[in-house]
Amino acid sequence: MKIIRNGEAPSVQAPAQNFTGTVWQNPIMRAEDPARVNSVNVTFMPGARTNWHHHPYGQTLHVTAGLGWFQTEGEARIEIRPGDSIWIPPGEKHWHGATDTMMMSHIAIQEREGEGHATWLEPVSDKDYLAQ
Amino acid sequence: MKIIRNGEAPSVQAPAQNFTGTVWQNPIMRAEDPARVNSVNVTFMPGARTNWHHHPYGQTLHVTAGLGWFQTEGEARIEIRPGDSIWIPPGEKHWHGATDTMMMSHIAIQEREGEGHATWLEPVSDKDYLAQ
Repeated sequence: MKIIRNGEAPSVQAPAQNFTGTVWQNPIMRAEDPARVNSVNVTFMPGARTNWHHHPYGQTLHVTAGLGWFQTEGEARIEIRPGDSIWIPPGEKHWHGATDTMMMSHIAIQEREGEGHATWLEPVSDKDYLAQ
Repeated sequence: MKIIRNGEAPSVQAPAQNFTGTVWQNPIMRAEDPARVNSVNVTFMPGARTNWHHHPYGQTLHVTAGLGWFQTEGEARIEIRPGDSIWIPPGEKHWHGATDTMMMSHIAIQEREGEGHATWLEPVSDKDYLAQ
């Protein structure tokens, strides 16, 4: 077994090419081959969000704090709250993040295909982000 | 996408044939095929623990509250604390649970092979559980 103690894996700021605003990622674990799963704690400051993106084997989100927004392309934006769990199927284009006034933390769980577990697309415009 | 709102998936008590003591499981999500991952919040009351078991694609644990114990067969029992993450490789026989005086909650993440994501073995004896 392998243990990563609290404090041993520093928080990393999410890259500006795939996120808008300030987002901190706390790695939980990258499972070793032949397992595929990767898990991470993600905290979005108010106004921060992912770019549009999708996953080869889908994604599970579990909200742990704050208040967030989630949107699948072509559907209405929804509010997500602590204790809510979201399943996004493979290839479904979506984004998630904080609301414009509240931070949001979630655990994100996704399986990789080869080395990649996400295909990153364009930023979420302020118009899309704020649309109700 | 599919959303399970907090409160929609009741907590379930873990089955006595695979656990000792009182253990509550809160499902997070079972990813749909071809994804394999299943995630669950698990809370162990003081003295409660899993049976010995192993997983076809290993398991990730992330402690969220309390104080717990973890042991791989043939190794020393270790203490696990909130924020600690543990990776258990495929087939590695192990158990996890609360300490004898403290509850413990963790998120458990594992991938299924067919319909199963764990092979359950014998209970952890009080002697093994309390060995330091």
